[in-house]
Amino acid sequence: MRAVHNVNDLQKALESAELIGLVPTMGALHAGHENLIETARRECRTIVVSIFVNPIQFGPGEDYSQYPRTLERDLEACARRGADLVFVPSVEEMYPLPQLTFVEVTRISEHLCGKFRPGHFRGVATVVLKLLNIVQPQRAYFGEKDMQQLQVIRRMVLDLNVPVTIVGVPTVRDPDGLALSSRNKYLSEEERRAAPALYQALQAAARRIKEGERDVTKARTAALEILEKHPLVRVEYLEVVDPDELAPVSTIGSSVRIAVAIWVGRTRLIDNVFVNAG
Amino acid sequence: MRAVHNVNDLQKALESAELIGLVPTMGALHAGHENLIETARRECRTIVVSIFVNPIQFGPGEDYSQYPRTLERDLEACARRGADLVFVPSVEEMYPLPQLTFVEVTRISEHLCGKFRPGHFRGVATVVLKLLNIVQPQRAYFGEKDMQQLQVIRRMVLDLNVPVTIVGVPTVRDPDGLALSSRNKYLSEEERRAAPALYQALQAAARRIKEGERDVTKARTAALEILEKHPLVRVEYLEVVDPDELAPVSTIGSSVRIAVAIWVGRTRLIDNVFVNAG
Repeated sequence: MRAVHNVNDLQKALESAELIGLVPTMGALHAGHENLIETARRECRTIVVSIFVNPIQFGPGEDYSQYPRTLERDLEACARRGADLVFVPSVEEMYPLPQLTFVEVTRISEHLCGKFRPGHFRGVATVVLKLLNIVQPQRAYFGEKDMQQLQVIRRMVLDLNVPVTIVGVPTVRDPDGLALSSRNKYLSEEERRAAPALYQALQAAARRIKEGERDVTKARTAALEILEKHPLVRVEYLEVVDPDELAPVSTIGSSVRIAVAIWVGRTRLIDNVFVNAG
Repeated sequence: MRAVHNVNDLQKALESAELIGLVPTMGALHAGHENLIETARRECRTIVVSIFVNPIQFGPGEDYSQYPRTLERDLEACARRGADLVFVPSVEEMYPLPQLTFVEVTRISEHLCGKFRPGHFRGVATVVLKLLNIVQPQRAYFGEKDMQQLQVIRRMVLDLNVPVTIVGVPTVRDPDGLALSSRNKYLSEEERRAAPALYQALQAAARRIKEGERDVTKARTAALEILEKHPLVRVEYLEVVDPDELAPVSTIGSSVRIAVAIWVGRTRLIDNVFVNAG
């Protein structure tokens, strides 16, 4: 495995590569990322992991400067899971000029996190398209924990005819249900004990829907009741949405997704589950 | 030469192609387009011309439905100039889903035509990126007559790391100086007689600058005086701009571009010249 820091070196290393799989990350790798790399390893010939904390997807006042950076351990994890190349560009390598070009995925970007993080998905779509153009992979891997990001990228690829297959990989959870996230590192012990309420709330709403509930308000209430028991938790949004564009639905049809964002202290956590309402 | 109407057929035809040159057009081909194709023919192995009147770059009330469509003659011109493939997709082939994704090139899109045609360059950048992703050419050819479009595309390609070389090709003019444009077909005989004032005005301003004029207002006045003599002509904009981002300048440095848009009756014409102020 080799770490490369600039586009030219990466492209030279990939010159005769076949069936490239790209795993774009912001580093601070955990078992969820490792699962992405392992999935890519099974399906592709050459595995590229990118590690880049992308400034243009963070809003003012967000955690860009605090975002955990653990490069040495990340490189070990990449090697262990079978990556061939790790692309670790500087901000100047990714944005040598003032970035004037942005990719906007309308509608899908506007709900859920998009409402609370204006410009976030624009920054995500733009950097992912850059990475796809730099690496030119046949397949690229993204976690389902960030479902809105995944759907934004899927639609970008369709709408712009980008020649790549986007693969969504199921969320990896701690034994108590908390979805793995680099931001879990921010949690104090007490906050960490409250955090599993996120997934418990999703499961409670999902159970109600599977049992036949078709009223969105009632399904939401089942989830909110669980979250409201925790004084450390503040709900940012909790929505029942259509599984494609992730727009909140007013009545529950054959399948929905439930998506939630909470603050636990100063840490923002998101999660989501798919529900086949049958 | 072969005309293909869908992405799959095109990509199959290009499977083992090398050194692909793409000439994106909206059809109604004239000697300016033919010059693009000839230039591509000299530099590349496989030449693809696309013909697609792109609805998303036209505003409401613009000439999308009236835009000249002359496919049979276009195909003859493509064959004559040595194209290998002509890609003629339907609107449904290019936009099978509601288009949610758009490419915005800020700043460069905001001056000149961008001010008068909101959303135009967004539509241009988006369709050009789609065509680049579909064809995956090594080189793509655009006319310098549409200088702002060319600069928008150049910057998009840089900012998004698109693996293609953008080639700007000099404007082809009628003997009286009028830049060739598919929209020249709209002009009545009388309007056609007034239209060369466009280039004469640019030349007058350029001459003043070459003679040492550094005052933008005076250089503009030299051009505007010529245009104002023609009762059929209405000036939309006439600006002295920097040659890169095409933002209006207040003082004339070492090199500038002069860009102009006029209406002659119901027809909108644009043109531009580069001036090395020395």
